[in-house]
Amino acid sequence: MKIIVVGASGTMGTHLVKAWKDKHELIKVGSNSGDIIADITSPESIKSMYEKVGRFDALVSTAGPTYVGPWSTLTDDTFRKGLEGKLMGQINLVLIGKDYVKPKSSFTLIAGGLTYEPQQNFANASVANGGIEAFVRAAAIEFEKDVRINAVSPTVIENSPQYFKYFPGEIPVTMKQLEYGFDKCVFGANTGQVVKLY
Amino acid sequence: MKIIVVGASGTMGTHLVKAWKDKHELIKVGSNSGDIIADITSPESIKSMYEKVGRFDALVSTAGPTYVGPWSTLTDDTFRKGLEGKLMGQINLVLIGKDYVKPKSSFTLIAGGLTYEPQQNFANASVANGGIEAFVRAAAIEFEKDVRINAVSPTVIENSPQYFKYFPGEIPVTMKQLEYGFDKCVFGANTGQVVKLY
Repeated sequence: MKIIVVGASGTMGTHLVKAWKDKHELIKVGSNSGDIIADITSPESIKSMYEKVGRFDALVSTAGPTYVGPWSTLTDDTFRKGLEGKLMGQINLVLIGKDYVKPKSSFTLIAGGLTYEPQQNFANASVANGGIEAFVRAAAIEFEKDVRINAVSPTVIENSPQYFKYFPGEIPVTMKQLEYGFDKCVFGANTGQVVKLY
Repeated sequence: MKIIVVGASGTMGTHLVKAWKDKHELIKVGSNSGDIIADITSPESIKSMYEKVGRFDALVSTAGPTYVGPWSTLTDDTFRKGLEGKLMGQINLVLIGKDYVKPKSSFTLIAGGLTYEPQQNFANASVANGGIEAFVRAAAIEFEKDVRINAVSPTVIENSPQYFKYFPGEIPVTMKQLEYGFDKCVFGANTGQVVKLY
């Protein structure tokens, strides 16, 4: 299967690339490194990525900058980080990607447990996640020709211990559990689903 | 109670104003009419609104432009309508409003059933709603001094029959049910709650 991995050098992307590389043709995409350099906050950059890739079977996104910081520092400006990054960046991967899909292609986006289990300092990520979850449900009923779209929604992940202190009481998702979540979306037949890993 | 009603001349706002006007001091806000003219897509305009209002007990928002149209017409450009309007516009009412609140003030935003019950042509509204719902849960754990924030989430409403054809199988929410939803948020003690009216 030809799989585009957006955010391939990140914590999640690195794991998925390692898990899939021997069985699939992976196109690693990153903002600073990879087979293709792309900035998901730029529609032109996303279009250029699809032009380079050509036909693909699945796109997986693990990318999504958000603003983390105290409530008092949340403003229109700081809130844009997640709005343009994790939310609109990922939505544009799909809105632009819909011109490049073939039948049975799939999109898997990254959401997160903060949608329902908020933590202080992370309101920006909660909004991006909530928007992404609603988007995959809405997009799933619009796509034709068996094109699928889902999201994986982990809480804090095993390989990001620097965040543990911000997630009191959240049991970290193991990298293997995360991999299972993406496996379900990419290799399964589901659509419009948010795979909750918490 | 001194209540700011943003979107006071809209379908929902008109009903709420009629229901509350004899018992409360209402500040009607609209983009074209009202006691104060304000554009929620402009942070400066929102700030100016709060400066004019002074101290308040509750802000209620029924405002939220979104893009409605076929999947093929969804692009970065068209998607901005709901992203800047119903989503970021309402979030900015809160992010800017947090500098003007007094203890026990409350915010009530408008979300919608499309978060979980998508309909074709309305993906933009689904995303705005999903983001707003996650936002009120996140903001509720950040506010101090008993400041509250909730959202009302109706499906298609009784007084908007022009939308019925787009919502097959959805039982329209009556204006009275909608009023109860807002009553619960404004006059109740709940916070971080999405009042589902479907």
